[in-house]
Amino acid sequence: MTQKLLGNLSKGLCFVISAPAGTGKTTLVRKLVQEFSSVSLSVSSTTRAPRPGEVTEKDYFFLNKEEFEKQIQENAFLEYATVFGNYYGTSRSQVEKKCNEGKHVVLVIDTQGALQLREKQFSAVFIFVSPPSIEVLKERLIKRKTDSIDSIETRLSWAREEMAMADYYDYHIINGDLNVAYEILRSILIAEEYRVRLES
Amino acid sequence: MTQKLLGNLSKGLCFVISAPAGTGKTTLVRKLVQEFSSVSLSVSSTTRAPRPGEVTEKDYFFLNKEEFEKQIQENAFLEYATVFGNYYGTSRSQVEKKCNEGKHVVLVIDTQGALQLREKQFSAVFIFVSPPSIEVLKERLIKRKTDSIDSIETRLSWAREEMAMADYYDYHIINGDLNVAYEILRSILIAEEYRVRLES
Repeated sequence: MTQKLLGNLSKGLCFVISAPAGTGKTTLVRKLVQEFSSVSLSVSSTTRAPRPGEVTEKDYFFLNKEEFEKQIQENAFLEYATVFGNYYGTSRSQVEKKCNEGKHVVLVIDTQGALQLREKQFSAVFIFVSPPSIEVLKERLIKRKTDSIDSIETRLSWAREEMAMADYYDYHIINGDLNVAYEILRSILIAEEYRVRLES
Repeated sequence: MTQKLLGNLSKGLCFVISAPAGTGKTTLVRKLVQEFSSVSLSVSSTTRAPRPGEVTEKDYFFLNKEEFEKQIQENAFLEYATVFGNYYGTSRSQVEKKCNEGKHVVLVIDTQGALQLREKQFSAVFIFVSPPSIEVLKERLIKRKTDSIDSIETRLSWAREEMAMADYYDYHIINGDLNVAYEILRSILIAEEYRVRLES
């Protein structure tokens, strides 16, 4: 089953995944891409500085503010948002190209971006991943050691706001155990390939 | 993962599964019940004669025509239909009791019964299983040796009519390979446990 077919579909699906930082979304999505050759990850554009080891075009398209705002003007983004003072956006042409080639595209975006897509009635499967609790999330962020205590408090307060948005999604996975959460995620992918979608 | 939790749910879901005879639905559903202790099979009522080895209350509730029609009058069936001259129906109280106990209930019913439930906006996940083709179905029915050639022809012509109904279902599984079809079915179960359902 690792070389997944596209079920009843003629082109790939979009999966929009949101999760507060520290919820394990990167690990979950990486496992999905590894198991299913039909799944590819959307590469976001951002104006934030690269972290050590991050590579442009692989992790993000790193743009400066002027370039990003020019692309906004050109309507080149499916969605974009400002998070902690930086722009993040999803290139429309990149996603459409992959879907038309029969690939599923996973968009890892925050709740602001996801709600923009919902409002536009963008055709996608919306998945929210949350930690079992804010306390567990706090422990994970402290253990990760990539954020200062101040930054962790900011992330936690934003996580609380994001978690209130879970009801706007199609699926809500609570990541208490990585293997269980992954089994749910891959099940959603497979199920959605066999969902009846009528041509309108 | 064999002892499935109920995801985000407070009570069990109904899964309505329809498939032409010979499609492998019995095998698929049996595997589901074996893997997931949270899944139980709805036992239908029927007026058809028991086949060798069939046991009342386990395979069917075997009723005579008068008893069945009395229960119709009492609105005791969620749905009922006539197939090849016999009544088949699903007892409402049986299904409600299991769901309230936190069990998922699988209703294996034909397209007539399923469409009745759809029209009533009965809350369930509707799954259609079809053979890869009518030719493959014919071979399977011949190999099964439970039907005469005449009966097989009748079943095939009914199968054609049923297959035209697949678009009324939420999911459409094509059973070309039993293991693949089963993985899709169990994925649908798991995914649906984590679907966001807002209380209305």
